[in-house]
Amino acid sequence: MTIAIVGIGLIGGSMALALKESGYAQTIIGVDKQVEHVVKALELKLVDKMALLDDAINQSDLIILAVPVDGLLSLLPYVLDRIDKQIVIDVGSTKRPIVEAVKNHPNRRRFVATHPMAGTEYSGPEAAVQGLFTGKYNVICDAADSDSDAVATVKELYEAIGMKITELDSVSHDVHTAYISHISHICSFALALTTLEKEKEANRIFELASSGFASTVRLAKSSPETWIPIFRQNRENILDVLDEYINNLLKFKGLMLSDSYEKFQSYLKEANDIQRILE
Amino acid sequence: MTIAIVGIGLIGGSMALALKESGYAQTIIGVDKQVEHVVKALELKLVDKMALLDDAINQSDLIILAVPVDGLLSLLPYVLDRIDKQIVIDVGSTKRPIVEAVKNHPNRRRFVATHPMAGTEYSGPEAAVQGLFTGKYNVICDAADSDSDAVATVKELYEAIGMKITELDSVSHDVHTAYISHISHICSFALALTTLEKEKEANRIFELASSGFASTVRLAKSSPETWIPIFRQNRENILDVLDEYINNLLKFKGLMLSDSYEKFQSYLKEANDIQRILE
Repeated sequence: MTIAIVGIGLIGGSMALALKESGYAQTIIGVDKQVEHVVKALELKLVDKMALLDDAINQSDLIILAVPVDGLLSLLPYVLDRIDKQIVIDVGSTKRPIVEAVKNHPNRRRFVATHPMAGTEYSGPEAAVQGLFTGKYNVICDAADSDSDAVATVKELYEAIGMKITELDSVSHDVHTAYISHISHICSFALALTTLEKEKEANRIFELASSGFASTVRLAKSSPETWIPIFRQNRENILDVLDEYINNLLKFKGLMLSDSYEKFQSYLKEANDIQRILE
Repeated sequence: MTIAIVGIGLIGGSMALALKESGYAQTIIGVDKQVEHVVKALELKLVDKMALLDDAINQSDLIILAVPVDGLLSLLPYVLDRIDKQIVIDVGSTKRPIVEAVKNHPNRRRFVATHPMAGTEYSGPEAAVQGLFTGKYNVICDAADSDSDAVATVKELYEAIGMKITELDSVSHDVHTAYISHISHICSFALALTTLEKEKEANRIFELASSGFASTVRLAKSSPETWIPIFRQNRENILDVLDEYINNLLKFKGLMLSDSYEKFQSYLKEANDIQRILE
């Protein structure tokens, strides 16, 4: 199979590596509108060749759109306008606005909305890594709105790169990701700002930073170009979660102010229950 | 040298392993008031033998206090009452209340206040790991209040287990740790609570949890018995940082509510500066 990947960054580049490694794709054609990405993708041998978008569409059986979710809103209809029987998938972190953008498109059923739940805090072609998707979940959204042959092929593709498949409607997807992905990024960005502000007066502050701090703050290295469009598109859900998160912090603050450490301890014990979920 | 370690949990147990491995200690005597810890420490061969506190003090050249910081407030003067020329160190995550508790003690100068900046989210003797301290910073606080031979020995000890040494006054230490350790734990505990509450209505929510979420929330597995006393003793500093953190979150919320994504993006770019500090 010949696969075009539009956007050769962390996710697109890692998919290129995984699809080639698995043997699922014979040929990978890369597309990217940034010159540095084109040059780097070839230099790092992430793809077999780079091409312009229209040529890549014509030469491929399947097209993967791995661009920031704001760009997807116009890229997806553009690509659907130009396909025949090919399959198009996106890998964006929001789903409702994406499926909304093409709900009346005549080629809607050739599109499969997906979200491989994997990533790192790095970005660009240099961030592409082998094995990023192995053992992780891929979500297929609103599968009933896609042709069944397209959904079957997309499942094969994700299974070929070692992913487990689950299905959700796009509305639930966006609620779930607000809780278990988007809010983590907000927390980390805000924590980084808080400590960096303090650094202005205490310049040795990070000398002591422990691995726990590094773990909590690492997502703050993530690309704003990727994340602002996600926060924007999933605004309502994120605002809900953010309110709940701030309320929990205010609750902790109140318990400290009133020296209610027994009650505080009981909340921390509740929070410990997270070890049931994370190994 | 014969070293007594009081409290054979994550930190005490890992110090026992490191001190033995390095050859710095010939004999390690463990002390713990929990029967399960005594049994486990022997079973895991973390120490050469377990003893009761008074016997351990008599038989040791140096005594390491690795108990939760609330217990330290009474344990430290108790131990200082019973030493002759021995050196006593603590490894707690707060410093001002600890040094305050013994500031008028006749044996104050045999005590060196230290804080090895290392840990994991696990607790108890089973959490003890080889190499926990290698390459990390140890902070010695208020060194001028300790005998210089005691400080020199303590530096040797930490260097023997591969740590870099830095010095701070205890007041600055407690401000710094509020920013680069204590607040991370508050963030993680609150994030875990937020998502666990949501799980009650969406039971598959954690199926999709990515490595980014796991990283941000992992400190929420930490022991409340360790952390509540830290939050309590460092209350004022943590409340300050928590206010700044909540303000940053409220700023993000305001920017989303007013659709000010350019401004929001500029804050995320500022937060990216954290990569200057963390590899």
